[in-house]
Amino acid sequence: MKPLQETFRAIEFREETLILLDQRLLPDTVAYFTCTDARETEFAIREMVVRGAPAIGAAAAYGVYLAARESIAASGQYIDWEAFTSRCTLLQGARPTAVNLRWAVSRMFRVAEAGHLAGEGAAEILRQLLFAADAILAEDVAVNRTMAEFGADLIPAGARILTHCNTGALATGGWGTALGVIKEAHRLGRNIFVYADETRPRLQGSRLTAWELQQNGIPSRLIVDSAAAVLIRDQAVDLVILGADRIAANGDVCNKIGTFMLSVLCKEYRIPFYVAAPLSTIDFTIDSGADIPIEERSADEIVTIGDIRIAPQDMPVFNPAFDVTPHTNITAIITEHGILRSPFTESIAALRRTTNG
Amino acid sequence: MKPLQETFRAIEFREETLILLDQRLLPDTVAYFTCTDARETEFAIREMVVRGAPAIGAAAAYGVYLAARESIAASGQYIDWEAFTSRCTLLQGARPTAVNLRWAVSRMFRVAEAGHLAGEGAAEILRQLLFAADAILAEDVAVNRTMAEFGADLIPAGARILTHCNTGALATGGWGTALGVIKEAHRLGRNIFVYADETRPRLQGSRLTAWELQQNGIPSRLIVDSAAAVLIRDQAVDLVILGADRIAANGDVCNKIGTFMLSVLCKEYRIPFYVAAPLSTIDFTIDSGADIPIEERSADEIVTIGDIRIAPQDMPVFNPAFDVTPHTNITAIITEHGILRSPFTESIAALRRTTNG
Repeated sequence: MKPLQETFRAIEFREETLILLDQRLLPDTVAYFTCTDARETEFAIREMVVRGAPAIGAAAAYGVYLAARESIAASGQYIDWEAFTSRCTLLQGARPTAVNLRWAVSRMFRVAEAGHLAGEGAAEILRQLLFAADAILAEDVAVNRTMAEFGADLIPAGARILTHCNTGALATGGWGTALGVIKEAHRLGRNIFVYADETRPRLQGSRLTAWELQQNGIPSRLIVDSAAAVLIRDQAVDLVILGADRIAANGDVCNKIGTFMLSVLCKEYRIPFYVAAPLSTIDFTIDSGADIPIEERSADEIVTIGDIRIAPQDMPVFNPAFDVTPHTNITAIITEHGILRSPFTESIAALRRTTNG
Repeated sequence: MKPLQETFRAIEFREETLILLDQRLLPDTVAYFTCTDARETEFAIREMVVRGAPAIGAAAAYGVYLAARESIAASGQYIDWEAFTSRCTLLQGARPTAVNLRWAVSRMFRVAEAGHLAGEGAAEILRQLLFAADAILAEDVAVNRTMAEFGADLIPAGARILTHCNTGALATGGWGTALGVIKEAHRLGRNIFVYADETRPRLQGSRLTAWELQQNGIPSRLIVDSAAAVLIRDQAVDLVILGADRIAANGDVCNKIGTFMLSVLCKEYRIPFYVAAPLSTIDFTIDSGADIPIEERSADEIVTIGDIRIAPQDMPVFNPAFDVTPHTNITAIITEHGILRSPFTESIAALRRTTNG
């Protein structure tokens, strides 16, 4: 069996600095972007230096630590609670769709709050926050490993797999969600083949997933997003697996634009459609996908690539970053607590009870 | 009503030279590519200086004229038939999918052949060939105008229309097929709105259709191909209209990659799905779309944009330029002889009888 280690680390915290592999520059350039305060961390999330729901969560957790550090009051003894809260709010607003961001910031905030209410000094709160952020990052890797083991059971030997966007080590604390399942199946010697959607507009498929597939030696081919339809129709893929940015209590999945299109095709041609996402991606507070805010991003993402303009000046665009796939189009949701199946309202409620989510 | 004239000419023949608006450089640069022999014309078609099934046909027609001119025997009196035939074969093989290329070369070849068999000299055959090529170009514009008038009847006032690839004046002898219908509805003051798919990998939507929409002052927005699905689901578009590269006798439509995906979504969400194509696009010799050869183009189209690499070195790709949409997913086919509806095998057979196609 192939080893588990990655050849890179997308998120690292060293010497009071959050070090992010700058995903805007891959695959051409491997460079790092450093954040030493909350504002830089917010920028890195908003501008997609770091992206992928779980990775955003982990980065934001360190952002909360940095926020606390720069909110130490003049005395040096205590956290200036107003300044800290406002920096946490900034972080939480960096991107609207992925729930992991909110989840991580809330979890970190509660750690600080507990210390604050207990009258602890700044140094102790900072110590606890760093511990908590490290835990979020480490947990995410563990969660992904467990998810990969559950998910690999769904990947038959010789499977030809289609995936969308990037859900690998770059999108998470490490290892990956949907791509983690794919990597696990490869590691187990299942002789798989992967088709990667390029994933317009930001090309996470061609820039990031293709790179990770190569790093892991997984046989694969890259396609344009709209070519997936013929592969699905012609039964040239055996299953589709991808990630999620937020999952509603009824199992509706919000994920990268293009996910919904794939789900309709899979349903029509009876191809299994799997979502791999950790518990932290499930938003138990919303009943359905209709309540998930869909981020609309800049026109630049569509009309330019690097310095090249690919559309006329002033061409208006519609650029939703995500779409919602109804739970009725989903075969199963792979989590670190097992595989959820329809009826999802019940399986998700049961998961919530088991995990006190 | 708005005027009919175009602001540009994509194909022109002057002073023994075929002058093509170089569509590889739009919208940034308006430049022309000139062909003075069959080989240059074949290059222009293969490399997509000129593209769009009807435009390819018209360009190839002039290519046959140029082929004849350079095949004049040493005596200067007669056409060297072997050289001429081999140049026509070269032209016909420039691209495999669109039937208009084959249709135009055959039609031109028959003109030359009739003259050759009648013992006519080179000068007379050249005269007839130039006349025939001019006729193909002029007919195409007339055909498109007629198609646009038929098609406009299908566009309700206030319609929000989705289109794919480029089917305008750039893709044809002039005016356009599907985009011609859209332009006609706009000219008639129907108050339409257009969503243009960017159409990866070659971005004919963002580079060419967006440009033509702007040139014609038609309100529109550009989207990535995979975002079309949510617009269709949310009933944010009232109809889809696009072109064809070849239509089989049963109504199966081969068109730009991504067409099939749209057709599945339209069927699922009961949105009309229209194809606009001239009679010359119908291949009566094949029973179904399964018999249409699908061109696979270079990996470069997917892994690079201009000089920018957007995927890792040596990433394998699957790059089919076209896909086949089954006739069962098509609401109607708009031709210059009227609107064809299901059962298409019968309506196409009737069209063939009427037109001696």
